[in-house]
This record gives sequence, C-alpha cells and structure tokens, in this order.
Amino acid sequence: MAEMIYRVNMSEKSFSISECPKEWQEFGGRGLTSAIVAAEVDPLCHPLGANNKLVFAPGSLSGTTAANSGRTSVGAKSPLTNGIKESNVGGTSAQAFAKLGIKALIIEGAAPEGQFYRLHITKDNVEFIDAKEILGKNNRYVTEKMLELYGRKVSVLTIGRAGENRMLVSNISVKDPDGKLRSMGRGAMGAVMGSKGLKCVTVDQGSTNEVNYVDEARFREAAKVFATSLKEDDVSGKGLPAFGTNVLVNIINEAGALPTRNFRSGRFEFAENISGETMAENIKARGGKTTHGCHAGCIIQCSQVYNTPEGEYQTSGFEYEMIWAYGAHTGINDLDVIAQIDSILDDYGLDAIETGVTFGVAVDAGILEYGDGKRVVELLEEINNATPLGRILGSGAANLGRCYGLSRVPVVKGQSIPAYDPRAIKGQGITYATTTMGADHTAGYAVAVNILGSGGTLDPLKKEGQIELSRNLQIATAAVDSTGMCIFTAFPMLSDPKAMPALVQMIEAKTGATLGMDGLVEYGKKVLKLERNFNERAGLNRAHDRLPEFFKEPLPPHNVVWDFTDEELDSLWNF
Amino acid sequence: MAEMIYRVNMSEKSFSISECPKEWQEFGGRGLTSAIVAAEVDPLCHPLGANNKLVFAPGSLSGTTAANSGRTSVGAKSPLTNGIKESNVGGTSAQAFAKLGIKALIIEGAAPEGQFYRLHITKDNVEFIDAKEILGKNNRYVTEKMLELYGRKVSVLTIGRAGENRMLVSNISVKDPDGKLRSMGRGAMGAVMGSKGLKCVTVDQGSTNEVNYVDEARFREAAKVFATSLKEDDVSGKGLPAFGTNVLVNIINEAGALPTRNFRSGRFEFAENISGETMAENIKARGGKTTHGCHAGCIIQCSQVYNTPEGEYQTSGFEYEMIWAYGAHTGINDLDVIAQIDSILDDYGLDAIETGVTFGVAVDAGILEYGDGKRVVELLEEINNATPLGRILGSGAANLGRCYGLSRVPVVKGQSIPAYDPRAIKGQGITYATTTMGADHTAGYAVAVNILGSGGTLDPLKKEGQIELSRNLQIATAAVDSTGMCIFTAFPMLSDPKAMPALVQMIEAKTGATLGMDGLVEYGKKVLKLERNFNERAGLNRAHDRLPEFFKEPLPPHNVVWDFTDEELDSLWNF
Repeated sequence: MAEMIYRVNMSEKSFSISECPKEWQEFGGRGLTSAIVAAEVDPLCHPLGANNKLVFAPGSLSGTTAANSGRTSVGAKSPLTNGIKESNVGGTSAQAFAKLGIKALIIEGAAPEGQFYRLHITKDNVEFIDAKEILGKNNRYVTEKMLELYGRKVSVLTIGRAGENRMLVSNISVKDPDGKLRSMGRGAMGAVMGSKGLKCVTVDQGSTNEVNYVDEARFREAAKVFATSLKEDDVSGKGLPAFGTNVLVNIINEAGALPTRNFRSGRFEFAENISGETMAENIKARGGKTTHGCHAGCIIQCSQVYNTPEGEYQTSGFEYEMIWAYGAHTGINDLDVIAQIDSILDDYGLDAIETGVTFGVAVDAGILEYGDGKRVVELLEEINNATPLGRILGSGAANLGRCYGLSRVPVVKGQSIPAYDPRAIKGQGITYATTTMGADHTAGYAVAVNILGSGGTLDPLKKEGQIELSRNLQIATAAVDSTGMCIFTAFPMLSDPKAMPALVQMIEAKTGATLGMDGLVEYGKKVLKLERNFNERAGLNRAHDRLPEFFKEPLPPHNVVWDFTDEELDSLWNF
Repeated sequence: MAEMIYRVNMSEKSFSISECPKEWQEFGGRGLTSAIVAAEVDPLCHPLGANNKLVFAPGSLSGTTAANSGRTSVGAKSPLTNGIKESNVGGTSAQAFAKLGIKALIIEGAAPEGQFYRLHITKDNVEFIDAKEILGKNNRYVTEKMLELYGRKVSVLTIGRAGENRMLVSNISVKDPDGKLRSMGRGAMGAVMGSKGLKCVTVDQGSTNEVNYVDEARFREAAKVFATSLKEDDVSGKGLPAFGTNVLVNIINEAGALPTRNFRSGRFEFAENISGETMAENIKARGGKTTHGCHAGCIIQCSQVYNTPEGEYQTSGFEYEMIWAYGAHTGINDLDVIAQIDSILDDYGLDAIETGVTFGVAVDAGILEYGDGKRVVELLEEINNATPLGRILGSGAANLGRCYGLSRVPVVKGQSIPAYDPRAIKGQGITYATTTMGADHTAGYAVAVNILGSGGTLDPLKKEGQIELSRNLQIATAAVDSTGMCIFTAFPMLSDPKAMPALVQMIEAKTGATLGMDGLVEYGKKVLKLERNFNERAGLNRAHDRLPEFFKEPLPPHNVVWDFTDEELDSLWNF
C-alpha cells in the first residue's frame, strides 16, 4: 500500500488524498516537512497568512518496531524566525499517522477570521467539525474531551488559548500514551496552527496498520542491534533513565556554562536545588516515577512522573532546558515551583524555552524580579488571558526586547538561546549561530562531545574543531530527525560504531532504498541545504548566522568570550 | 577656517574636536551621516548598545544665504529597521552647527544605565551636565527650560520620555525659530539618543559665524536663481504656501490612493473634513497663520499656526502624512481632534507616521475602534507612561503585529508605510520597497511625477517607467538631502531646468569643488550605495526590498494590485 499525502484546505473546508510523490518517498519527518515547505511555501509570505502551510509528518521509521522511532515533525514558515521551521515531538501521533499510511498531513489556507475548526482523521477521511465547544480551552481540557469522544487510544494534537491568539511562544501539544502532554515546542508552530483556524486534530488509526517492510527479517536484525546500543550507552542507557535530561544541571553548572540571570554568569549558586539528583530524590520520596516514555517503543525513558510534596501528580516531561530557563536564568531556586510552572506551560501550550528565556530577560525590563515564582505564575495567566503585558511576554524574548528597548537579548534569528552558554560550550554556540532553525540546541548538539564525551572529547572553551563538529552534527541530526528517531539516539550513534549502520540498515530494510552510511550523510546535507535556501529566499542570510553582540562580554567563571570571526562562522556551510 | 568634527563619548564623558577629514569635506547632511555610520558603526552591533553612534550633521549649504537650506540630518543604525538611517529636520540646529563650524557631531558610547546627561555646545567646547532636572519631562518643558537658561536664540535638540524609554516610535525634536518644535521623525533616532543617556543638546552659536564662501558673488547669483525658481513653481510657490502639505488630502483621495482603514481602500469618505482646504478655512477663521517657516531662510512656508476653535494656539508643522495617519488610516474625521493629537506627539517626541500607522493597525488588534480620537489620546498617555500597552504601541506597527499575531501590517524593513497607497501610486511603492531607509515617502517622492505632474507625468496605476523614476528620484534625493535643502525644493528642480544647475553652482561656489550636474548625480549614487552596503552587512538584502504580501489584494476604487516582480524590484539597483 502506497503512503499517502493528506492535504487539507482550511479556506475551503476541503481535503484531498494523493500518493506521495516519488521524490518525497524515501524519508519522512523533518526531511519531508522541510521539503514540502521549501517546495510549496512562498518564502516571502506572511507566516500567519493563508499562504503559509503547516505540515505534519511522522518519521520514516515511525510505526515500526524500531526503538525510539515515534517522533512526529511539524514544519512551516515560522512567525518567530521568519525562516523555515521544524519542531518534533514524541507522543502518539507519529505512530497513528504511520499506521494510517499517512506520510504527511498538509494544512493549507485559513478559516475566515475568528472561525475555528477541528479535524478528525481516519482511514481515507478528514472530518471538519466546528471547534466551538473547545474554543478558549487549554490542552488538558481539549485532550480529555477528545479522549471521551473518540476513546483513549485516539491521538490528539492541539493548541491552547495562546495558539488561538497567534502568540509567538505558542506550541502544539500531542497526547502521550498515558494521556499526558508532549510539545512541538519551538518556532511558534502553535501560532501557525491558530492562524489557520485549526484548534485540534484527532488521528484515529482504528485497526489499520499500513506499516510494511521490504525485508522485515533484516529490519528486525538491525533493530535489535540498535536497541542494544541504546541500552548500553552511558548517557541513553544510564544517565537519562536515572535522572532525565535534568542530569545536566550539575554537569553544565560544573562546566561553568549554565547561563545564569540572563547569561551574566556560567554558574548558578542554587544549581543543587534544581538538579536532576534533587529531582530524583523528590520523585522517589513522593511516589512518582523516575522513568517514563513519551512514546510507545521508547527504551530510554527520560521522562518521569513528578509529584507535588503532597504526592499528587504535578508534571512529566520535566526537562533540563525548561528547568534551566525558570531556574538559573530566571533565578527560581525551588524545583517544586518550577514543576508547577511546567505543568501550566503544558496546559496553556507555551514553549518552555521561549517563555522561560523571555521571563529571564523581562527582569531587565523591570517586569519581575529574579526568583519570583509567584509573579511568573501570575504573568503566565496574563499570557493566557492575552492582556497587553501577556501579549508582550507571549511574543518571545526578541519582541520583548524591542518593546522595552533592551540590548541584551539572547536570540538568534529571533528565537531564544537555551541552557548552554555559547561562550563556554563553543560547539553549541556554532550550532546556535548557524542552524537554519534559529537558536536550537537540538539542531547540532555539540554538548555531547564538548561536555559529555560521547564519541570523543573536544575542549568546550577552545575554538579548535568546533565548526567541523557542529557541521557534522547538524548534518547527522537533519538525517536522524527525518527518521522519527529521538535525538538521544545520537549518543550511541556517536559512541558505538554499530549504531549508525544499524539505523541505515533499518531504513534500507523498511523502504528498499540503497542508502549506506554515505547516503545518510548526503541526505542530511540535502535537507540542510534546502532549508538554508528557503531561509535565504526569506531574507535570512549570513548576517543572521551570528550571535548577539553581548556575547563578547566575558562569562564567569572562565571569563571566556565569543570569539569566532564571520569567516569562520560562514565556513560551516562549506559542504 | 576648517570645518570640524565634534566627537562626544558618553561612556567616558569626554569629547574631542578634529578637522573634518578630506573625504568627508565636500558634502554634509545625509551624505555625511551615512558616510560616518557606514565607516564607523559595526553593522551587526545592537542599535541600542554602546557601539552604535548617533551622528548630527547640518547640510553642506546650511548656514548660507541659500533659501530653504536649513536642515539638519541625524544618522545611526536604526533600532526600527536594523539598517542605516537618516532623518532630517528644519528648525534652528543646522544653522547653529554650521555657524560654529561644526561639520558633524558624533555621539559615541553610552552613559551607565539609568544616567542621563545633556550637552551644551559652544565654540570649541562641549559641556556635560547632569540631566536630572529635565529627566522624565517632555519636549516643550525641556525646550522652554533651555531657552530660559541660555536665551531664546540657543538651538535645542531633545527627546521626550518615550526617547528616554528607548521606544521605537520616539523621535528627536528641534526648536524652530519661534521656540516651537520640529521633529527628526523616523527610524527611532530618539531611542538611540535615549540609549546613549543623552536627554538634550543645546547649541549656542553666540556671535560666531564660520560660514565661508570660496566665491561669494557666484554663490549669490545662483541663490537668487534658485529662490526665484522656488517662488515660481506651482507646488512650492503656490500649493504649499496656501494649504501646507495637507493640500494633498483631496488630491490623493481623488487619485484613489489615500490609504483608508489600514490600506483597505484608496478613498476616505470624510476626506473633505480633514483636507488642506478645511484646514486653511479654520486657520483664517480662528486667527492662525496659513504660512510659517520651519527654519530661517525658508521661502516656501508650508508650516502654519493652527488654533483651536477658541482661538488658542494648538499646533504647527501640521503635515499631510500625520493627518492621513490619524485621519483616513485611523478613521478620525475631525481635524481639530487630529490637531490635538499632533500637539501631543510634538510634546511627547513621537513619530507621527510610525505611531499613526500603529494606531490604525491597532484597530485590527482590537485595541481601539476607527475614529475614536479620545481613545487615541488615552493611548498616547499609555505610551508616555510606558505601560505595557504603551510599550506595545510605542514599539511601532511591525512589533504590534508580532505581539498580536497580525498578518496585515504595512511596513517595509520594519518601518511603517505612510500616506500613499503603493498600489495606486506605483512609483511611490517602488521607493517604499527599495529605499535603504525602510518605507519612507521622502526617499524618492514619486508622487511629484505620478500625481502632481512636476516635470512630466506618468500614469500612477501603471508599472511602466516607475522603476526608472524612483531610481532617479532616490539618487537625486540622496544628493539633495546632503545639502541641507528642504525636500520641497525638488518640485522646482523637477519642473524648472534652471533650478538644479543653480544648486550645483551654489555648492561649487561655497566649497570650491568642481561638481557639475553629473557630479551631483554621482554623489547621490555614492550615498545610496554606501547605505545599501551597510544594510547588506546588517542583514537587509533583496528579500527585504519587498512590500508586504497583503498588497496583492485589490485596492478600491481602481482595484489595482501590487504587481512588480522580484526581478523588476531588484533592477532598481542597476546603476
């Protein structure tokens, strides 16, 4: 059975289903969303206008038995960066799409101003339903309503009120296997969904399973090798299951690279309070779970169930970057307060990184004081209610900076820099500056090599080798993001020579393609180049591949500065 | 006596005076501010950071007896457009600078956060004075204070509270000969001045007059021809003195090009209420003045004294673009209400075009309703008080659009499009799209030929010839903006073959340069190219030389659309 493209037109309330064209067949996920956006979206269109397109695509391995392959990508022209955007998520949607044989769901046009619909997708059908019953509601309510309506197994993608209000910090939430929420966080994809008049998408695979293998035995053989590699890796097999991503607080703080109080220091004196170790203790003492998978088939289990001191469920998917943003960056030193904020962000559909960075910068604007968690909760309510102050905070750090005339705003291409100071983890700085996505830590996670020693070491404070490292990681990530694989599969792929060939073998055995290791790399290059070409046509050029000027200030404790030349940064694209 | 560069460092509270380098000697005004910014400012610096520079320069003919030569330019990297910016103004400063022999005043560095100073400039001296007595005060108060302190003849350049607050709609005000206010309106030069911790500059020429002529007789001969030409032109000699710039309301409305209610129509049903003819009647009935010069030596006298119905002074410099912004665009149909707003804008130091366009767009955001002048006045108070809503409105239309997720925002390079619909005056659209300044009607005023028939005619609704027209006008304007001449000298220069040679002769006779007509054109080209080069290095490229997508909508009554191709737009730069 061929894989299909589902195309929905929100202006006309119509849909069509067609076979996936040949040139889009080989891969999925980011490669596919970027290829569609690059081919079909005018780079100069308004990102919140009817001519932008919102594209969902499961990875090429999603729906298979491969471990950790359950991620869905969403792509569009981003109203935050004004460039191409891909954001991906675990949860239930990748497998639901894949099992329905849906290679991509393309949302075109826009409902008339003020009208909102939801879509219910089943085999060969897309139903348009007036969204009035869920309009103005947030993600938990909407998700629960849909599960009541269609059963607990249906997949739900939804936006909160901030998305309806087309706010640039809004994201798209996806139901996880337990009915909890995961987020396609970055680049204001929630605002694009809102601009189309689309409140929610439910995907009901029913009993359909269109996932086929060209050579299933060869696939299973590789999948086993890959899973073993994931299990045996120090990071994906040990650190992440034990402490979640928040294992990083102490590590990055120790490295002097934990951006503190709007990037004024690399050390936070309360790091211990918000660390993964503290988190694990709290979880154990309160009857939570230190391990939890965001999607079926995850064997890393870096998520968790974090309870309140009273033992009530508080949040899950409680990530390092979020804890950093409200912790070291905004100065909150109480993990429970941060957990409460995390829960609110999930419900309201707000990107934890973009809002968190904005809040830390808002201290410079006099809007709040460092460490005032109560004020943060009040301000999140302002965002939710779209008050003027909420509109400012809801438009992200770059916009806040413009409204308040600030010159110390940590953004690249309009998107906030997260959790790893580029001066003290220079490879990460290269990724922030040069990725097509705006500052995005996942686009080429040099922390793996600079700090965690996966597959080698490289002094994070020195320039040598960082451009090559970031380039290679960005290429590999573009390819891996196309498979539906979780980014943490990168750790074994860096450290275990068996892992990447196993990934290649899985792709080949599933699709029948002749790829090889070189083919995977070539594919990654192709994706990056088409993304960059889109960005250039949209007006983002080499001058936008730069960090803000204030990173020339020395960062304590190492007193390192950002010292790459323009020529060095531009050389990233020499491939 | 050589002309001098005064250089002030706000970080160090120091100044230096040096001879103007040879390559900067020939011209002044825009050519000089742009040359200095291009040479000395890092295009990637933060425009509100210490590394930006704010440059004031009188025109090359300022201080002479040439009619209408009294304009001062200010330049910097603009925080509104993120590109190079020049804005110019009449008033008293050009002549004061010129007579002191000051070719340019360059403000560098920045006072420590929260500290504000004022500068008092006399022959060979710059005095730094703590600004605490005028901090938090607006332009009328500050100007009056300075006149009390230094006498009525001193020139005053000042920012209001919005400038202190680094708002992107803030401008710089200059005292006119009567102690009234004129504005360097566009591109947030007030925010740059505020970011330096500079509240006010007083320039006291005392009895100094350093203005010299290489050949005074030849200068006087040309000046006489030029003045006659100005007087005899239909626009500069008749229309403007009679009705001010607001003569345009009925003309542009008749042409179907008066952007109404955020560019949804080219006709405003209340045009007559806000027209120049109505204005002239009110002025006569109330004992105002229909003619008034913004600077000594002006013989056009397009300004006026506009009184309230009770015969009290209300405002002057009451311009067409301002009246359009609050009239047709924001829907106010009462000229007296608009006059009240104009007076507030002058006092608060807010760019009439940027705020006015923002207010019209704010209707789409639900912040006010069309025609609600009372609400406009309240909202101006929010800007003045820097409330959150005031911060949004004070950051300009592009930013408002980002905060509220709007896709119908009339800006180019982040700066608002004024008063002439680009679909119905296509030559003006070319200027908006391609000028280095962000949408700026003065950068290449194609209205003169498209509508007013100065020096020829060209169908405003047709594409033919518009690119060449805009190119020639932009080149000529860049040259004329360097002389200190008022833009309205362009009318006789277009229609009377004697005017431009007279201008060239004046420059030659004053400076000793051998210029010729070709030399003037070459100079204009040089200025544009160095501005564009700065912009390219700052990240503004051909993708930014475009109008917003929504101009593809047909504009009633002619139902014309914006239909230039990218290639056509890019061809503007073929020179």
